[in-house]
Amino acid sequence: MITINGPRLLDDLRALAAFGRYETGVDRVAFSPADLAARRWLTERFAAAGLKAHLDGFGTVYGTMPEVGKTLLIGSHSDTVPKGGWLDGSLGVIYALEIARAFREAGLSQRGIGIDVVSFQDEEGTYLACLGSRAFCGDLDAAAIAAARGKDGRPLTEAMAAGKLAGEPVRRDPARHLAFLEAHIEQGPRLEAAGRSIGVVEAIVGIRRLWLQSAGQADHAGTTPMPMRRDAGEPLLRFAAWVLHRFAAVAGPQTVWNIGSLALEPGAANVVPARGSLSFEFRDPDAARLDALEAEVLAAIADIRQGCRARLDAAVTTRIAPVAMDARIVGALAAAARELGHDPLMLASGAGHDAMILARHMPSGMLFVPSIGGRSHDVSEDTREEDIVAGCAVLARTAARLAQELADG
Amino acid sequence: MITINGPRLLDDLRALAAFGRYETGVDRVAFSPADLAARRWLTERFAAAGLKAHLDGFGTVYGTMPEVGKTLLIGSHSDTVPKGGWLDGSLGVIYALEIARAFREAGLSQRGIGIDVVSFQDEEGTYLACLGSRAFCGDLDAAAIAAARGKDGRPLTEAMAAGKLAGEPVRRDPARHLAFLEAHIEQGPRLEAAGRSIGVVEAIVGIRRLWLQSAGQADHAGTTPMPMRRDAGEPLLRFAAWVLHRFAAVAGPQTVWNIGSLALEPGAANVVPARGSLSFEFRDPDAARLDALEAEVLAAIADIRQGCRARLDAAVTTRIAPVAMDARIVGALAAAARELGHDPLMLASGAGHDAMILARHMPSGMLFVPSIGGRSHDVSEDTREEDIVAGCAVLARTAARLAQELADG
Repeated sequence: MITINGPRLLDDLRALAAFGRYETGVDRVAFSPADLAARRWLTERFAAAGLKAHLDGFGTVYGTMPEVGKTLLIGSHSDTVPKGGWLDGSLGVIYALEIARAFREAGLSQRGIGIDVVSFQDEEGTYLACLGSRAFCGDLDAAAIAAARGKDGRPLTEAMAAGKLAGEPVRRDPARHLAFLEAHIEQGPRLEAAGRSIGVVEAIVGIRRLWLQSAGQADHAGTTPMPMRRDAGEPLLRFAAWVLHRFAAVAGPQTVWNIGSLALEPGAANVVPARGSLSFEFRDPDAARLDALEAEVLAAIADIRQGCRARLDAAVTTRIAPVAMDARIVGALAAAARELGHDPLMLASGAGHDAMILARHMPSGMLFVPSIGGRSHDVSEDTREEDIVAGCAVLARTAARLAQELADG
Repeated sequence: MITINGPRLLDDLRALAAFGRYETGVDRVAFSPADLAARRWLTERFAAAGLKAHLDGFGTVYGTMPEVGKTLLIGSHSDTVPKGGWLDGSLGVIYALEIARAFREAGLSQRGIGIDVVSFQDEEGTYLACLGSRAFCGDLDAAAIAAARGKDGRPLTEAMAAGKLAGEPVRRDPARHLAFLEAHIEQGPRLEAAGRSIGVVEAIVGIRRLWLQSAGQADHAGTTPMPMRRDAGEPLLRFAAWVLHRFAAVAGPQTVWNIGSLALEPGAANVVPARGSLSFEFRDPDAARLDALEAEVLAAIADIRQGCRARLDAAVTTRIAPVAMDARIVGALAAAARELGHDPLMLASGAGHDAMILARHMPSGMLFVPSIGGRSHDVSEDTREEDIVAGCAVLARTAARLAQELADG
């Protein structure tokens, strides 16, 4: 039906990893010289595969099959976090390129439905998370682009200008793009722990993130009686205790949560804290559960506020809705995996991906391959070669099946 | 019997506050130019009061009554914390000077027991806490002096050399010094809250300080299932929860405690903490209770360690023993306060003082006056003028009574 070329796939992945190589990983943040060089190289590779290749004003690389009017769009992103890993989104970009080549080699594009290939810009949010896929889907306005800045304060518009990117922005084409497929490393330990090579994503979780700040009074911790203190640590530690002891009881089986930061000031052993802050986030694929959990968290905060002499402020800073993957594509991915001898793990993605943006506009699906030790966003990130090749074969088979079904009407 | 001169006392206090003035307070850390200028001025003031005045190699200012062979030693320290208050130890130094003057004016030194006056160096620990009183008591060896450094890394020996302090170190004289009296601001809110002008210190609390460090693994907080995490925040937050919910139940009525610092790294909302630290201290005037509480804390830490996947290390970094004040002096202070129309508050000092060092070598006692709003170690530190004068009058009456009792045998 369709046969991918494993060595060609691995060669291209390794060639891409040479751009911005850092120790055993890659440092290729969006709009860096290494990122732009990699994107120019991808443009050449797409063209060499017979695609009409285009580098757009954001840096998104887009390759279209000229001989067809309808396509499955496949891809991911080739930018990385600082000192990141060599696979991450690059895996999904090179999968797409290899599948486009194999699709043509199998003569499948002659049925009128082909493959378009894409590497979106700045999925990692160096300037603006999912910049490329948002722009592609028309989800970004000029004000958001004008306001976006890097951690170092550099405006996105300046980074774009410095990159000398002049191409017209590429935009999704509802008449052409029938579906979106994205492959990615899992970035977690579940596939490895379960001994599986293929993960099929059923949903991308939603995120709620809260920022708690407390204000009390700095007092001498030896001379100030306990009842007279306004300890800014108290409300934050009471909230943390509630999370440890109670949140688990209300959370669902797929809920994950994290107290990622907690700081007290001035931070001296003998001074009662005057100020403090804490970040708390939780994720779940079920929107109703996220709402219920947020209500529980806010009720707990209100209780704690009543019982403490220090002031406690809390704000929900992030509300990202969960996104379900297209049921037909989920089924096609699982079926293709089984036909190739795998026992796919059905799971929710705990991290955001470009597919989260695309899924609001077209049927979308995601495939995961295992991350060794669950590692990602680090130079230690890796995946076994046979899993890399197996993942591409499953995604290629899925694309071929979907294209055939859609062509058959 | 003995009458102090209130305006003269206040004038000297205000004159001393001009050295290193900072906003409404004083910045006069040990060995700073302002500190050394203040100490030279004190030497002159002691001499002007008819005392034999001496500035020693550490910067301690010592004034002795030449006409007597036995004395009560009275004083405190004139160095401050950075951006500190105008009273703190300066109050006790100027009290001592005023009491020596009033003692002579009342003809009391003719009975053979007089007053020696002292301003110890570096009580605040800019280089070495209670440097002057420790050196005075012979509690410091050369190695400790050689090793002492400021927060900026500057060696104490360099600061001493730069100060051009050449005088022989003054040492306590067991044949001469019958007792030590120190007055200080309370540095807490208890006198003000109770509406009292005089506090009599029964004991200086002991301190136990612990430093907890945790080590886990930084993981993606969205993609790593809860049971697979080694969250370095967990053991610290479990300990904090134990302190909030259980420590109060085992603490005594005079115990105070503080979680002064808590930090998680890398400190991002979406990253499981890889490392963390927490400082915990508790204070109590009862040595046996401190031991019992330490045992409870260490048992709790052992329990938490068993239940967490992240590593938890804990060390007791500070063990300072509580010190009881001399019962006879405590009684004399309380009696003098009542005779002058006050209702003294008997209390433990939650902070350390030079009297903690002296009390191991001679009968010692301390008097507190109220701190407005409980404030200290800050430019907002202040005490009402009538309380300043009242405290000196009570300490003077106590000194006169003790000197008479000791002279009478």
